[in-house]
Amino acid sequence: MNMHIGKFSIHNTDGKARAGELHTAHGVIPTPIFMPVGTQGTVKAVCPQDLKDLGARIILGNTYHLYLRPNDEMIARRGGLHKFMNWDRPILTDSGGFQVFSLSGLRKLSEDGVTFSSHIDGSKHVFTPEKVVSIQKNLGSDIMMVLDECVPYGADHEYTKKSLGLTTRWAARCRAAYPQGSGDQLLFGIGQGGFFKDLREESIRQLLDIPFDGYALGGLSVGESKAEMMDILYHSAPLLPADKPRYLMGVGTPLDIVRGIDAGIDMFDCVMPTRNARNGTLFTSQGKVNIKRAQYTEDDSPLDPECSCYTCRNFSKAYLRHLYQAQEILSYRLNTIHNLAFFLTVVTDARKAIEEGTFQAYKARFENIYDT
Amino acid sequence: MNMHIGKFSIHNTDGKARAGELHTAHGVIPTPIFMPVGTQGTVKAVCPQDLKDLGARIILGNTYHLYLRPNDEMIARRGGLHKFMNWDRPILTDSGGFQVFSLSGLRKLSEDGVTFSSHIDGSKHVFTPEKVVSIQKNLGSDIMMVLDECVPYGADHEYTKKSLGLTTRWAARCRAAYPQGSGDQLLFGIGQGGFFKDLREESIRQLLDIPFDGYALGGLSVGESKAEMMDILYHSAPLLPADKPRYLMGVGTPLDIVRGIDAGIDMFDCVMPTRNARNGTLFTSQGKVNIKRAQYTEDDSPLDPECSCYTCRNFSKAYLRHLYQAQEILSYRLNTIHNLAFFLTVVTDARKAIEEGTFQAYKARFENIYDT
Repeated sequence: MNMHIGKFSIHNTDGKARAGELHTAHGVIPTPIFMPVGTQGTVKAVCPQDLKDLGARIILGNTYHLYLRPNDEMIARRGGLHKFMNWDRPILTDSGGFQVFSLSGLRKLSEDGVTFSSHIDGSKHVFTPEKVVSIQKNLGSDIMMVLDECVPYGADHEYTKKSLGLTTRWAARCRAAYPQGSGDQLLFGIGQGGFFKDLREESIRQLLDIPFDGYALGGLSVGESKAEMMDILYHSAPLLPADKPRYLMGVGTPLDIVRGIDAGIDMFDCVMPTRNARNGTLFTSQGKVNIKRAQYTEDDSPLDPECSCYTCRNFSKAYLRHLYQAQEILSYRLNTIHNLAFFLTVVTDARKAIEEGTFQAYKARFENIYDT
Repeated sequence: MNMHIGKFSIHNTDGKARAGELHTAHGVIPTPIFMPVGTQGTVKAVCPQDLKDLGARIILGNTYHLYLRPNDEMIARRGGLHKFMNWDRPILTDSGGFQVFSLSGLRKLSEDGVTFSSHIDGSKHVFTPEKVVSIQKNLGSDIMMVLDECVPYGADHEYTKKSLGLTTRWAARCRAAYPQGSGDQLLFGIGQGGFFKDLREESIRQLLDIPFDGYALGGLSVGESKAEMMDILYHSAPLLPADKPRYLMGVGTPLDIVRGIDAGIDMFDCVMPTRNARNGTLFTSQGKVNIKRAQYTEDDSPLDPECSCYTCRNFSKAYLRHLYQAQEILSYRLNTIHNLAFFLTVVTDARKAIEEGTFQAYKARFENIYDT
């Protein structure tokens, strides 16, 4: 094992915001970082060369989806996910837990793990902590995540408390299945605790007894108000170890990301830029643009005058609107390229602002443009 | 008007096969050439930079579709189709006739033109020869096509004879609406005549009285057998003026194209490479590949070992099959890139073979791989 793998260094801070670097088997990730989501072995509508052109440094793969199709053992026989999809930069895989609770059917939870049925063909499967580590080892991701129970929004204190205990025991079993330093893959723990500050504290406290290469906050952006999310985020982020990367799972809007950085988070992923691109909702330096609106029918200006992505350099809003209205595949591609460029620029610019000590001004600018 | 526009020179022949160059307002097209079809202002699933990377020298736009959506006058206000879609190489537009007869509803044919209803919203429209020239002027294509009646397969001698007379009168009206040399756009005539050799001869004879910048054969690949198509093709192509570009509309398979070149045709277009790509049917130097077949599940080899396109350089058949099975947008893109690379290579290699006097061997090689 390369001795640098897992090394995390912070070279600048601005308030709680941090600029650093995480070493992985497939290269160094500058933080704060945004990870485009590549659910089924592809970031939807773009190819690896596009992602490199956009400056993506790490992408996320979904364990649940890749396990079901094409199957992790098949991917292992292809030499792992990097080789299969031809992406030679870092990959983080989630544990599949979130998808089991949000996408699959017939869930049955026990101490051992969770039984669920595939959203593709209804077939029955079991995820245990050991199983999801085994799958992620087959995928060969740079960063693996522990299996956790994703508590639905609205769960009460008692249920949430019981659940976080299970999540901790599962986290320990994941670590045991892949002891620290046993290979080139890193393993991150996940703090849960719903919307109870005492339980968030308890969950993180329990996790600290287990040596992880990074720590995540899970269970946010699950239906709560922005105020609730921010309250928990700003309370919990500083409780995560300062010398390890901190990852806010599945969040969020550009403003959520900027606020997450403000709270001391280093890593983000969200389907928002890619999914919204396909729905015609585009993020720009002037705010959100719904490209299907009639006002863009004859608008020859680029989508975002401050953006230098392929879409903004080459096409007008009128053309993008036409492609969207005509349901052309190129619409998905050009919109996705732009939205990813925007999200990736947010974290790159945030990092620069932290280095220059101007992060609060950067955040204020965002709060003027995006109110959610 | 640039004095070279419309100039067509043949610099090599091999049998009836010709290698030449056609000058247009947006550059010189080497012939024989294949034109990817960009129906709605985009070649489906790829962007202009992809087409350039693939070596596409000219693309086709569909007058019927662009007239209905986003509308030719709107495109004219954007500076024309080239600027709207950001493609600075030549564009040929069809007249819309074929789509009126194949896609739209409620057709009513008269001496004046054809009344039809939109396949999008059922609205009623009229195409006259003058109207389709006006639309193509608005689009600003390099090569315009005359309006013709597309006779359905199985039409009898009497109907077909009457129809080709109408097509000739419409052709003359198109020419009158855009006199030769009146602008930077070229106008091609279209020979019809169904599957009757005497009528094919008569149609072409009538067209020769009108000065066109090129001549097309229409009404092939409409349901007939390959033998019938080839019989008419080999009979008709040599009757078209030798000193003008000859265009076989809407044809066809790689072998059809090679045989078309053999018959003396210079230009081709077909939705086959792009449409079949989206259906998972891929053309390779070893024959057709149906990428969804189970035999490719764990096939780590490239789709076509002789192909140097982005898809073949970077991905395995196993990955392409996975993308297809998962209905990922990237599947359409990677398959389209490969199929276009294959079709464009067919005509490039054919041209080289003509220059080297080895075209018959090239054709024989194709007949060994593709039987249709």
